[in-house]
Amino acid sequence: MDSRRAESFSDGVFAVAITVLVFNLLTIADKTAGHLTRQAFLSYWPAYFAYVVSFLTIGIMWLNHHTMLSAVTRVDRVVLVLNLLLLMGVVAIPFPTALIAAHLNNGAGGKVATVTYGLVMIAIGFGYGSMWIYLAAHQKELGARRRVRTPRLSTARFTAGNVGYISGTVIAFFVPVAALVIYGLLAVYYLFQHLPDPAADGDDQPGN
Amino acid sequence: MDSRRAESFSDGVFAVAITVLVFNLLTIADKTAGHLTRQAFLSYWPAYFAYVVSFLTIGIMWLNHHTMLSAVTRVDRVVLVLNLLLLMGVVAIPFPTALIAAHLNNGAGGKVATVTYGLVMIAIGFGYGSMWIYLAAHQKELGARRRVRTPRLSTARFTAGNVGYISGTVIAFFVPVAALVIYGLLAVYYLFQHLPDPAADGDDQPGN
Amino acid sequence: MDSRRAESFSDGVFAVAITVLVFNLLTIADKTAGHLTRQAFLSYWPAYFAYVVSFLTIGIMWLNHHTMLSAVTRVDRVVLVLNLLLLMGVVAIPFPTALIAAHLNNGAGGKVATVTYGLVMIAIGFGYGSMWIYLAAHQKELGARRRVRTPRLSTARFTAGNVGYISGTVIAFFVPVAALVIYGLLAVYYLFQHLPDPAADGDDQPGN
Amino acid sequence: MDSRRAESFSDGVFAVAITVLVFNLLTIADKTAGHLTRQAFLSYWPAYFAYVVSFLTIGIMWLNHHTMLSAVTRVDRVVLVLNLLLLMGVVAIPFPTALIAAHLNNGAGGKVATVTYGLVMIAIGFGYGSMWIYLAAHQKELGARRRVRTPRLSTARFTAGNVGYISGTVIAFFVPVAALVIYGLLAVYYLFQHLPDPAADGDDQPGN
Repeated sequence: MDSRRAESFSDGVFAVAITVLVFNLLTIADKTAGHLTRQAFLSYWPAYFAYVVSFLTIGIMWLNHHTMLSAVTRVDRVVLVLNLLLLMGVVAIPFPTALIAAHLNNGAGGKVATVTYGLVMIAIGFGYGSMWIYLAAHQKELGARRRVRTPRLSTARFTAGNVGYISGTVIAFFVPVAALVIYGLLAVYYLFQHLPDPAADGDDQPGN
Repeated sequence: MDSRRAESFSDGVFAVAITVLVFNLLTIADKTAGHLTRQAFLSYWPAYFAYVVSFLTIGIMWLNHHTMLSAVTRVDRVVLVLNLLLLMGVVAIPFPTALIAAHLNNGAGGKVATVTYGLVMIAIGFGYGSMWIYLAAHQKELGARRRVRTPRLSTARFTAGNVGYISGTVIAFFVPVAALVIYGLLAVYYLFQHLPDPAADGDDQPGN
Repeated sequence: MDSRRAESFSDGVFAVAITVLVFNLLTIADKTAGHLTRQAFLSYWPAYFAYVVSFLTIGIMWLNHHTMLSAVTRVDRVVLVLNLLLLMGVVAIPFPTALIAAHLNNGAGGKVATVTYGLVMIAIGFGYGSMWIYLAAHQKELGARRRVRTPRLSTARFTAGNVGYISGTVIAFFVPVAALVIYGLLAVYYLFQHLPDPAADGDDQPGN
Repeated sequence: MDSRRAESFSDGVFAVAITVLVFNLLTIADKTAGHLTRQAFLSYWPAYFAYVVSFLTIGIMWLNHHTMLSAVTRVDRVVLVLNLLLLMGVVAIPFPTALIAAHLNNGAGGKVATVTYGLVMIAIGFGYGSMWIYLAAHQKELGARRRVRTPRLSTARFTAGNVGYISGTVIAFFVPVAALVIYGLLAVYYLFQHLPDPAADGDDQPGN
């Protein structure tokens, strides 16, 4: 299959998943029925905080996803399966986000919510790592547009990300709010970290 | 109509339908309000299990859908109508998924839920079969890119799938959980079964 | 603006709107908590019926929308505004659908629900009529790919559709279920009515 | 990254966000369970009003977004980050819309809801302003298709919009309904205000 078609489907999934995050806010309108004061509004800050963190996180994942798939021109069955597993993780993100929005402030609930969040992120990280390694190992068959960066470095990069999420998950057992702050800082870090743009040299043919 | 436009609309529908599955998880955040312990979290395993099964199932349906429509370059009114009926089944999938998520563990409810799931799958299977037979019978008018595989074999393939779902549906009357396991195994089976990639020889012209 | 871009955005909106219809089914999973028997399941038939009717209706609207916009190569500000108003109606369709799903069986509620459904359809019909007339009147400026069919005939066609919906709306005041049947028959009628395919002679240039 | 790919993802997000607005209507079906009279139906007018205002507002934002991104052929990391922040605001719009739908009629709630709405709009306005200034300042590196309009004028334009939303937000503290009317008038104003179409001279190459 042409890699652009897999990308196009994935883009749609990312676009919907990132928008689903607002549903965790919509429920606030009902929960505050009859008593929407400023205090009541602000007391839902975990929902707003979690919205921002997850929005940036999914946004970055979209960018990384593009970086990966644009490196090749074709995808085979294995890539499609790996991609599906990856998307299964990304689409799930609004769930731990909802858990955090609803439970961050009560002890046990906050722990379960932020630990779940971290575990989902770690699973997605392994998904990206697997895909990247597979793409690098099969770049010829997949019609790579340029030499796909060595898996060693990429693995290191993804490992670094996972170390962050693993730390966050461990901390979540003790101070849930601190874990959410760490997840947010990880998102901001990746947001500004410069990624080489792999599309630059391969996207200028007509009809692209 | 150019078949790619029908595909593009269908892709959008698939992308939204697969993402809607997470809503069956989002409700857990509300249901556990005030008591989100690890036990409470894990007690919703039917929801997580059903999410994974349906995600993989819709993902595979997307792949098969692409395989079918990429075989032709044009679609006529009949294909569009068949496609709409097919999508009506795919979009409905989150509904039996929600029934399973909410009712798998209580006797009568689990039966109704898993039987409904199986019936929806069987209906979708017939939809795919009809579309495939129509495409094969009208490949000339639809500007087939290559010879569309004989309907006989394809029918056999789809029948095989439906035999699986029919068995699952029958079993659902007695052991709902076993039916869900079967639906899951069918998804995994189709995930790794090698499909010839029909786009390989027809997608490399410029502008595609 | 290139008309294909407006189409692409509209396609996305149609794809999401048609998928939103399943949410009217998802709520059934919660409503039947603890007592999902076969009777309980079947008692929600208005929801299933309304799902099918609205799914086909939005599907046909997508086809008609494509027929209209593919006739021209550019869109101006007026077309974009008309298109936005049209989409505002299409996106609203799940709302009267939800009203029907929840209220068809109780007297006053069924009337309000089916009348609202009819009014939304009539409003959308006028939206299509206005757009079609505008496109026909400005086909030169909008770079028509072929001569846009005379507005007279098109108006007749759309009027015919609206007569159907107006009749349905009037009947809804007395027999809500009959109105829903009429809406369904209108959808089936338009599904099989042959529309000339305007894209056939304009979509085969490279990069399309 | 090719600017069209960023646009395509953004289009998806806009399409989903605009459709999410209907969820504020769907809840009405449940809230009126058992007593959907004409009066009950009409008593939800804030929900209908807010739906129309937000639909037009997101629609216009989509147009402006296209106007901006179509001016360049490439986007860099900064544009992608700014775009993500912008989309984070756009996706949030259904939230204050839901607050207005649920609370416009009760004093304190109406104030909080309409003020929140205004603040979200102001934030989005600043997002557009920042993006526009950045694009104008880096048009060479971003491969501008034509000279990007001077930021001075554009800033003025966006400032004008923000003055409108700031006024609305201030008024929201005293007369929430009046604020909603102002937000609606701003949407209608921008809808008919003629924007030069930047795509006209850059979108006609093959494959576009």
